[in-house]
Amino acid sequence: MDQYYMRQALTIAQYAAGRTSPNPLVGAVIVKDGRIVGQGWHRQAGTPHAEIHALSQAGELAKEATVYVTLEPCSHHGRTGPCADALIQAAVKKVVVAMTDPNPLVAGNGLKRLRAAGIEVIEGVLAAEAAKLNEVFIKWVSTGMPFGVLKTAMSLDGKIAAHTGHSKWITGAAAREYVHTLRDTHDGILVGIGTVLADNPELTTRLPEDGKNPVRIIVDSMACTPLTAKVVTDRQAATIIAASAQAPAERVAALRSRGVEVLLLEKTPQGVNLQQLFKLLAERRITSILVEGGATINASVLAANLIDKVHCFIAPKIIGGKTAPTPVGGTGADAVDQCIMLEDIATRSIGADLLLSGYITGR
Amino acid sequence: MDQYYMRQALTIAQYAAGRTSPNPLVGAVIVKDGRIVGQGWHRQAGTPHAEIHALSQAGELAKEATVYVTLEPCSHHGRTGPCADALIQAAVKKVVVAMTDPNPLVAGNGLKRLRAAGIEVIEGVLAAEAAKLNEVFIKWVSTGMPFGVLKTAMSLDGKIAAHTGHSKWITGAAAREYVHTLRDTHDGILVGIGTVLADNPELTTRLPEDGKNPVRIIVDSMACTPLTAKVVTDRQAATIIAASAQAPAERVAALRSRGVEVLLLEKTPQGVNLQQLFKLLAERRITSILVEGGATINASVLAANLIDKVHCFIAPKIIGGKTAPTPVGGTGADAVDQCIMLEDIATRSIGADLLLSGYITGR
Amino acid sequence: MDQYYMRQALTIAQYAAGRTSPNPLVGAVIVKDGRIVGQGWHRQAGTPHAEIHALSQAGELAKEATVYVTLEPCSHHGRTGPCADALIQAAVKKVVVAMTDPNPLVAGNGLKRLRAAGIEVIEGVLAAEAAKLNEVFIKWVSTGMPFGVLKTAMSLDGKIAAHTGHSKWITGAAAREYVHTLRDTHDGILVGIGTVLADNPELTTRLPEDGKNPVRIIVDSMACTPLTAKVVTDRQAATIIAASAQAPAERVAALRSRGVEVLLLEKTPQGVNLQQLFKLLAERRITSILVEGGATINASVLAANLIDKVHCFIAPKIIGGKTAPTPVGGTGADAVDQCIMLEDIATRSIGADLLLSGYITGR
Amino acid sequence: MDQYYMRQALTIAQYAAGRTSPNPLVGAVIVKDGRIVGQGWHRQAGTPHAEIHALSQAGELAKEATVYVTLEPCSHHGRTGPCADALIQAAVKKVVVAMTDPNPLVAGNGLKRLRAAGIEVIEGVLAAEAAKLNEVFIKWVSTGMPFGVLKTAMSLDGKIAAHTGHSKWITGAAAREYVHTLRDTHDGILVGIGTVLADNPELTTRLPEDGKNPVRIIVDSMACTPLTAKVVTDRQAATIIAASAQAPAERVAALRSRGVEVLLLEKTPQGVNLQQLFKLLAERRITSILVEGGATINASVLAANLIDKVHCFIAPKIIGGKTAPTPVGGTGADAVDQCIMLEDIATRSIGADLLLSGYITGR
Ligand SMILES: [Zn+2]
Ligand SMILES: [Zn+2]
Ligand SMILES: [Zn+2]
Ligand SMILES: [Zn+2]
Repeated sequence: MDQYYMRQALTIAQYAAGRTSPNPLVGAVIVKDGRIVGQGWHRQAGTPHAEIHALSQAGELAKEATVYVTLEPCSHHGRTGPCADALIQAAVKKVVVAMTDPNPLVAGNGLKRLRAAGIEVIEGVLAAEAAKLNEVFIKWVSTGMPFGVLKTAMSLDGKIAAHTGHSKWITGAAAREYVHTLRDTHDGILVGIGTVLADNPELTTRLPEDGKNPVRIIVDSMACTPLTAKVVTDRQAATIIAASAQAPAERVAALRSRGVEVLLLEKTPQGVNLQQLFKLLAERRITSILVEGGATINASVLAANLIDKVHCFIAPKIIGGKTAPTPVGGTGADAVDQCIMLEDIATRSIGADLLLSGYITGR
Repeated sequence: MDQYYMRQALTIAQYAAGRTSPNPLVGAVIVKDGRIVGQGWHRQAGTPHAEIHALSQAGELAKEATVYVTLEPCSHHGRTGPCADALIQAAVKKVVVAMTDPNPLVAGNGLKRLRAAGIEVIEGVLAAEAAKLNEVFIKWVSTGMPFGVLKTAMSLDGKIAAHTGHSKWITGAAAREYVHTLRDTHDGILVGIGTVLADNPELTTRLPEDGKNPVRIIVDSMACTPLTAKVVTDRQAATIIAASAQAPAERVAALRSRGVEVLLLEKTPQGVNLQQLFKLLAERRITSILVEGGATINASVLAANLIDKVHCFIAPKIIGGKTAPTPVGGTGADAVDQCIMLEDIATRSIGADLLLSGYITGR
Repeated sequence: MDQYYMRQALTIAQYAAGRTSPNPLVGAVIVKDGRIVGQGWHRQAGTPHAEIHALSQAGELAKEATVYVTLEPCSHHGRTGPCADALIQAAVKKVVVAMTDPNPLVAGNGLKRLRAAGIEVIEGVLAAEAAKLNEVFIKWVSTGMPFGVLKTAMSLDGKIAAHTGHSKWITGAAAREYVHTLRDTHDGILVGIGTVLADNPELTTRLPEDGKNPVRIIVDSMACTPLTAKVVTDRQAATIIAASAQAPAERVAALRSRGVEVLLLEKTPQGVNLQQLFKLLAERRITSILVEGGATINASVLAANLIDKVHCFIAPKIIGGKTAPTPVGGTGADAVDQCIMLEDIATRSIGADLLLSGYITGR
Repeated sequence: MDQYYMRQALTIAQYAAGRTSPNPLVGAVIVKDGRIVGQGWHRQAGTPHAEIHALSQAGELAKEATVYVTLEPCSHHGRTGPCADALIQAAVKKVVVAMTDPNPLVAGNGLKRLRAAGIEVIEGVLAAEAAKLNEVFIKWVSTGMPFGVLKTAMSLDGKIAAHTGHSKWITGAAAREYVHTLRDTHDGILVGIGTVLADNPELTTRLPEDGKNPVRIIVDSMACTPLTAKVVTDRQAATIIAASAQAPAERVAALRSRGVEVLLLEKTPQGVNLQQLFKLLAERRITSILVEGGATINASVLAANLIDKVHCFIAPKIIGGKTAPTPVGGTGADAVDQCIMLEDIATRSIGADLLLSGYITGR
């Protein structure tokens, strides 16, 4: 039964997927005498935590009840005070958590406080599912780096465009809409200057219902982004230009005057120091970055070890062409057994296309 | 119930998959008073047809029975005489067929003969399934061309080798064994001279149990195949060299003296006239050809409209490299909407790899 | 999507199954921009309605949101005021309901009030599921009679006891525990005086976790219930004796002095007027009655048209015996085609036994 | 793979279900180089065995092949000679059997002969499935008694008729047709004289397609069967009257003169010695008997330990009636824990009715 209720808590936690950043997704379910008497989930940073919602709904039925939370209750922050204290005050009997707080600074403190108050605590129920639910938050809070996600789309013969550069559209409408749901649930989106110059993209989320725009990040070592580019002019979302310290000062100034943030990073042979960039973005509470680059930028983020997860769309068509571009350029591995491996592959059909998703092995 | 018994007939027809060439796969089920009383399937060219096996098993119970056959009974050839006559002689009451003979010269003759003998005939039961079962035979007998199958294997970023040319192994052991089951069920295997020079492959079927070797076809316009190549020396299977009429006569002679058949074809800018080649192979009763070429030969057979079906293995790894080769080279389409489309896509996991199979649209 | 959210509302409504009597089970889900932002369900009569819980959880996100409720929001009663007004005040945009209020006196009023306030209203989403969820409440509120449920348990040869009367146990432990979950979710349990005299049962709910005892109703026309019977002495639940007006006054007085309620009903040849009894019980807010009688009382409630649903346990054993009792006695139908039919039969295995549940046709 | 091919052998064995009596159902599959090259099943007593059919279909491909047979190949009987010898002569390499011959006189002889010829033998693959397939044959050959099957049909309150005796129809048309498929696959059908006098039944198999009539057995201790009864006059199937030695000689003579066989059995208080009857029927090669009696005869065959399997139809209707008859009469068990238990219960819906099938425990 513990797993049954925890699964319910995980389900309601997901209601807020993509909306709680930089906070984790958390769900709480309160059970009294074999019945659910309260449910809550965290909806947005700065609003009540899951436990507070659930306790409020349960009211006095929370007394002597068992509480299932997908994450260790906090012992510190939040406008509504520490959740551990709220649980103690509500006189619950038992708290079951899926996992402890991944923040190494506070991990275990909440559970300690509950136990000190005489509340029975059980840990680790559906821990793997909870860790998967918050893979982004865990990466960010435990390493200080954003969770990197690479999205590519290619033909059945590995091309992301025709040899002429023409690329509209490799995938069908359903797959392209799915990309917008990815944008909706990531904090940042990253492309190279090449993409901006070639396509002048908006890089926003366009969904039938509501959508949240990610922060737009342009890797542009020489600050070449045109002042007329949509990412500069449209004001739909924040834009960050990742330029190198060698970028012409007047371009930097011009961009900044348009309200665009320009970061001046260490220059590298390939452009800018991407690890430095990601670190700075993490400090700005950008916990996840969706990379939608061309072959070059994709190769760079992979080489810099910045990618955790890959979404690869495959369209059932053959474009052909010895010089047509592929999803990942650069030099590449020298031998097949030196390549980057993926694991936990999941496959799904989206319209006529296929989506393979997996995790970089060893991350 | 007609569908039920026809499905059974289709099932037993498949027992001989890859063994009946150039004959089709055929199954027959005889039903009397609601019970199966005889089953048979064609096992190999030159041996009894499905109907003969089934009638023999049913014995006198065939009288007044209903016979389900996946293909129209023959009215002509075969060592055991026309099956239509055998059915008439057995005094069956009704014959249900999935499809008529795809050979335009004899289509309908068998059914006509049955009807003339007062036997009730029903056509078209599970016709689509039967057509799929014999897609190879139908292509060959109705067009005089072999059924072309392209097999590729690439990484998740579209590479068939590292930029250095290293390619061992893109896919895992299970996928590689599956390729041998493909070889086992095709009449011919085709590669370009580049593959022979680079890898000196055997191009044979290596399976734990029995396997049938396909005829090895090397597209080699200048007859460069070394006399020491395994395909020349190993005598495991017939080898055909597709050279152009301009190939040096002494090389052709040398190869022929080693027991290799050399075809002299029309020269084209890309090498040899592949359509002419396929036509000649079809005349040699090679009904299906598995193309396992490199990027160039793959592009050529696709451009020549010789491919009907594609098997594409995708390995969960990223190799990278702007210059690393992809499954299909050549010039390629100028725009995405001019590319070759696939349909009827089926997806299956084989070991850690994925296999996408589909048909070229419009074929 | 309407169905998706309504299904969720139906699911959470059930969390309080058996606890809201005489109120219905109601669930509410609030959706804003494609996300659930609040959920609530009615937990117990006298506590907040589902909509109030959901609005409280949604907070200001309820503004412009869509609310899914399994039942028309009330326009009148409740300690927390009319829910229709609360929805209007929260400025929701749209209300989707599964069904209107089954109470003919107020049906449609809530929706009218919402529409008058400019809120879009959609009716009938998953109406059948919602009606099934509240089959008890709907029967009671729309007819003024309790929902009658007959529970029987017999062997595979139709016996509820051996010819000697021995009956422990026809069904296994799992089935017997399931009966306690039935008791837990019904307002009343009814047996005949024969069962009390033979078995001296407690007629309480015994479950591993918490359980609610139903009111115990004994059909006992002559008020023969012994003063030492458990239902008189144990004080675990209220007991009502359904006696006839002819019952000896001193027995009635004695029972009443023990705290047992005695109803004096019209006498009939078979005992007491059961329809009168059920009507009186309905007025006491007993919305559902589980009949666990012997063959005679079961026949009587069926003959009096008081049963809506039947749960029949069947044990995989053969007891035999021409005189062994069966689930339903009395005179019975004269011909098979005059019998009582059941429909919507559901079958489930409980331990080694089988449970068939169905509804009396035409009710 | 052994299980895969044995399952196929079991499947084809069933094609002849109900047609091979008193022989078992047997299927044989011949596998060479990973392919099925021959299949056969026994169709009828006096015709070729499964192995002979399969060997004939495989032809010379049987050499060095593996043969899967559901039962040990015979070493003795059959018009086509011992199958063990045929397998040896065909030079098969390996024989896999599901179970040895259940006939204790010959069990193991066939396998011994195969092993002596140097053929590898594997036993016990899918043994339980094979034993289930031939439950009738195994009972008969190993005990010398027929396999007894009791078929009943009752209402949800355990009645097989109204209190008036009216019984048309408890179950629906689909269930009644299913009973005919039961008759079709049993060697004998048994009822009591009461059923003959009340209903004058035909006791034949009426199916849309072909059907085989069982031998009709009437338990009629005083030889009261009217000479005008359909079972006497219609000549559709053999009829056996099980009378007692005390039956009036002139009635016995009259019945015999009409072509009915009359057995004169030991008299018992309940009628005739049923065990003696079943033993005599087994000697007449009646391997299975379907009992469709009324309450009395059903109780008698159960009491005499003659039933192995029970099919109980349950109709979703309530007939009621203290005196209405139930499926099993007689005295019955004195206590519930002394009753007859069933196991391996399978449940299926047939039209609106339910069919529970199970085996008497301990048989
Ligand atoms: Zn908290
Ligand atoms: Zn033929
Ligand atoms: Zn309300
Ligand atoms: Zn044999």
